Amino acid sequence: MAYELYYWTGIQGRGEYIRLALEEAGVPYRDVAREKGDGVIETLTRKAQTPSFAPPFLKDGDLILGQVSAILLYLGDKLDLAPKDPHQRLWTHQIQLTIADLVVEGHDTHHPLGADFYYEDQKPESKRRAADFRQQRVPKFLAWFETILTRNPKGPAHLVGDRLSYADLSLFQIVEGLDYAFPKLMARIGGDYPKVRALHDAVVERPNIKAYLASPRRLPGNEDDLFRHYPELDV
Amino acid sequence: MAYELYYWTGIQGRGEYIRLALEEAGVPYRDVAREKGDGVIETLTRKAQTPSFAPPFLKDGDLILGQVSAILLYLGDKLDLAPKDPHQRLWTHQIQLTIADLVVEGHDTHHPLGADFYYEDQKPESKRRAADFRQQRVPKFLAWFETILTRNPKGPAHLVGDRLSYADLSLFQIVEGLDYAFPKLMARIGGDYPKVRALHDAVVERPNIKAYLASPRRLPGNEDDLFRHYPELDV
Repeated sequence: MAYELYYWTGIQGRGEYIRLALEEAGVPYRDVAREKGDGVIETLTRKAQTPSFAPPFLKDGDLILGQVSAILLYLGDKLDLAPKDPHQRLWTHQIQLTIADLVVEGHDTHHPLGADFYYEDQKPESKRRAADFRQQRVPKFLAWFETILTRNPKGPAHLVGDRLSYADLSLFQIVEGLDYAFPKLMARIGGDYPKVRALHDAVVERPNIKAYLASPRRLPGNEDDLFRHYPELDV
Repeated sequence: MAYELYYWTGIQGRGEYIRLALEEAGVPYRDVAREKGDGVIETLTRKAQTPSFAPPFLKDGDLILGQVSAILLYLGDKLDLAPKDPHQRLWTHQIQLTIADLVVEGHDTHHPLGADFYYEDQKPESKRRAADFRQQRVPKFLAWFETILTRNPKGPAHLVGDRLSYADLSLFQIVEGLDYAFPKLMARIGGDYPKVRALHDAVVERPNIKAYLASPRRLPGNEDDLFRHYPELDV
């Protein structure tokens, strides 16, 4: 039975971290809301014994599992996208959780007062939060990724060990998001993190990812997504 | 060898979710920064092959593991504070990840523009963000906890199955944080979530937790912590 992904239509969003794992593995899956509309998310949540607080969630037979990091923990084992060694497997998960934290902070640059106000109603606040994000947070996160790539005893081609894991795919997606939302910032500081960029570029060249990125399933970045390009926030 | 917890001194913070699991299990552990000062956090991070982006992290022999949810995933197995069934174990983890999201949002009520500005430099913004938190987010999260307690086929005494898990301890801690930071809000709406309150109250009565809460190891809430009581944010 094909995996079923439930996530909002119209954006890459948090669903993209799941899509990248499924696409890299080359397994069949259904992107259910894209087939049937966003309403299926609420329909399944309303009756599930394990309802997710928010999408994305994955349905695999009788398992309904939410939270990106938990889904990737599960798929990492099933799709052979994580190390089998228990400590290495947890380290991969820890990296994913840190990426998830960065995703929240990226979103909050344009919604510092919360998701229930429009961006247009929090523009001055967004400018202050985004300045902090550009000047303090992005360099801190990218430096951490560069450090752990450098300290990987198997070399800097992957975040964990000497094989691709879902964490590598997620770091690729983070760089995609930062490049999209903060092109000026990344032009200025991106070169300071050559191993991060090299990993991003290597992921782009993987055959299944390359085919996915060229397909209509890969939506372009847009201003409903988590990472948004507002030029006034990228000065 | 005793578990070693590394976390900032002076607050409950994110370290508390780890402490509660260790205390409930009654295993020996060292709260290393409280013994030696916050400097040990940086010292260990600087040389670790798997450095955490931020504390808390746990050292268990040669394992150094960060991210609260990952630490609890690990300790849940070791301390028998999580179900062994794989799906139930993931569900417990998913609940913990959702609690972690709520912790971030609780913190952001007093730091909507980011952690690098003082609260005093973002008070008007905090008022707007806290209003959204009180009116939209807290009710949404508490309703979700109440729902999953209600839907637990083993009854509402625990979040998962019919035994205590680390998720129950973490939900207790969330209620403690909300009671401390938003007493007026909780007086108004707390009664709408009786199963959540009952679980909180049952955790308080567990012998090891009761002893812990009465010990000097349990720090009181304060305004350096994640949940802070600023009366102007609890109107």
